[in-house]
Amino acid sequence: MLQNQTRPVLPPYERKAHYYETDQMAIIHHSNYIRWMEEARVHLLDQLGFSYKRVEEEGVTFPVLGLSCTYKSMVRYDDVVNIYSSISQYSRTRMTVAYRIEDKASGILRFEGESQHCFLNREGRPVSMKKAIPQFYELLCYWGQENTEA
Amino acid sequence: MLQNQTRPVLPPYERKAHYYETDQMAIIHHSNYIRWMEEARVHLLDQLGFSYKRVEEEGVTFPVLGLSCTYKSMVRYDDVVNIYSSISQYSRTRMTVAYRIEDKASGILRFEGESQHCFLNREGRPVSMKKAIPQFYELLCYWGQENTEA
Amino acid sequence: MLQNQTRPVLPPYERKAHYYETDQMAIIHHSNYIRWMEEARVHLLDQLGFSYKRVEEEGVTFPVLGLSCTYKSMVRYDDVVNIYSSISQYSRTRMTVAYRIEDKASGILRFEGESQHCFLNREGRPVSMKKAIPQFYELLCYWGQENTEA
Amino acid sequence: MLQNQTRPVLPPYERKAHYYETDQMAIIHHSNYIRWMEEARVHLLDQLGFSYKRVEEEGVTFPVLGLSCTYKSMVRYDDVVNIYSSISQYSRTRMTVAYRIEDKASGILRFEGESQHCFLNREGRPVSMKKAIPQFYELLCYWGQENTEA
Repeated sequence: MLQNQTRPVLPPYERKAHYYETDQMAIIHHSNYIRWMEEARVHLLDQLGFSYKRVEEEGVTFPVLGLSCTYKSMVRYDDVVNIYSSISQYSRTRMTVAYRIEDKASGILRFEGESQHCFLNREGRPVSMKKAIPQFYELLCYWGQENTEA
Repeated sequence: MLQNQTRPVLPPYERKAHYYETDQMAIIHHSNYIRWMEEARVHLLDQLGFSYKRVEEEGVTFPVLGLSCTYKSMVRYDDVVNIYSSISQYSRTRMTVAYRIEDKASGILRFEGESQHCFLNREGRPVSMKKAIPQFYELLCYWGQENTEA
Repeated sequence: MLQNQTRPVLPPYERKAHYYETDQMAIIHHSNYIRWMEEARVHLLDQLGFSYKRVEEEGVTFPVLGLSCTYKSMVRYDDVVNIYSSISQYSRTRMTVAYRIEDKASGILRFEGESQHCFLNREGRPVSMKKAIPQFYELLCYWGQENTEA
Repeated sequence: MLQNQTRPVLPPYERKAHYYETDQMAIIHHSNYIRWMEEARVHLLDQLGFSYKRVEEEGVTFPVLGLSCTYKSMVRYDDVVNIYSSISQYSRTRMTVAYRIEDKASGILRFEGESQHCFLNREGRPVSMKKAIPQFYELLCYWGQENTEA
């Protein structure tokens, strides 16, 4: 797809691992990566020019329907990681975001994951993003890698 | 004060320390005790017969105005602690809750703390608990150790 | 398999949702379920009679290799959930634990998930549980639903 | 003291409030500020040129002995705050760090706090920082506002 070939490459979200995120194995506790995925997702939307805060202000939320991830190698206190995220799938009512975490210094892969989301309105009902926030849906069409309705 | 002498003694809130609450010093990270204080505060209100959930449903919240605490000895993974809490001070618009954490097995003191709260309505404005939820204010008068207006 | 038919049914891990686990959607933030999975896993081993603490003391850890989960319906502050967990797969070097979270009051399904683990020694090297802690391996054989080496 | 008058002013630690740090009051949950204090403390040592990671590698830890803080106004999701921290007191065996959190955009005060720390060696025994890591003790003398032994 021509579109995809011409999309600029977005800078990763850079994150330092905090002391309170370690556990007694002296590694970052696995639950924190799920929070880092959220931070990276928020950063991704900031990069796309339509913040998650604004999505919520326009009356739509993205609750998480599902997650899957694999832990490839350990992150330790004070390590800096680069989190690459992208919209791997989308439709009018759903979106999947993919994440890849690498050690900043060495480039070693730490983690890969994915989160599935649906779009809900303020009443908690599913909405079509195309109707609810057309401008955001256009971003999905431009940046999303696969339209699952296509 | 006669009232205080006749108040029954409430059972402590029992809590097991979770793995994800440890840090790389192999102790429970200090920030988690602040969360345990909240758990114990919620448990205290349950014991008094007027849950925090119900307080919120009646339109009042208790944001934290301030905290102070001292860490006496370390809690480790899988330790069970007893958290004793009580309403140490109260007025129509404020409340202070005191906490004492002991190791369940040995009785050794782990932590002492205090949290100060004000009472706000749904609009975020200070309210008199006496007017907003008279039944809850009566509980404060009965269980509270010191009325700072008195 | 005869073994499975005669295994007693284990009681679920009961958990109350804490206030600090909510987010501004007024639901329990999705990252906390990953922590609840850990709590339930620890509880499961307690039920089996060989605590995770003892596993660690005998020199073995179970880092998480991967997670997958689906969020079925929302948990709110003060809700009580029952978490059912079981060892769905095992081998000498790996283990998968499955989780199912239900609302205690209504029985409504909230969440299903799975965590994959490997067994490491103190030096961080993979170990055969059969050799490292034979008594624990016997529990895996008895309680595990599928031996992936078989 | 002449020294203090000539100390350069250190830049604050800038921190964005994450979605998972909110609670159902739609504000940042109060326990997270305790974690932000830790992040700011780590950042402060980085600025002083002797990271906390290096302190730990040289065999000394700074467990928290006590905390006190006041919440002045609310921080919300996506707000950016500036956290100013400084070593308000020190001795050979202890240190107090003070924190002040301001909204970056408006400068409005959000929070003030303080954490007390002792210095322990790998065996968990109190140590004199002057003897254990003289170079770090010199930084305390230069940057610390009050020597409680003086």
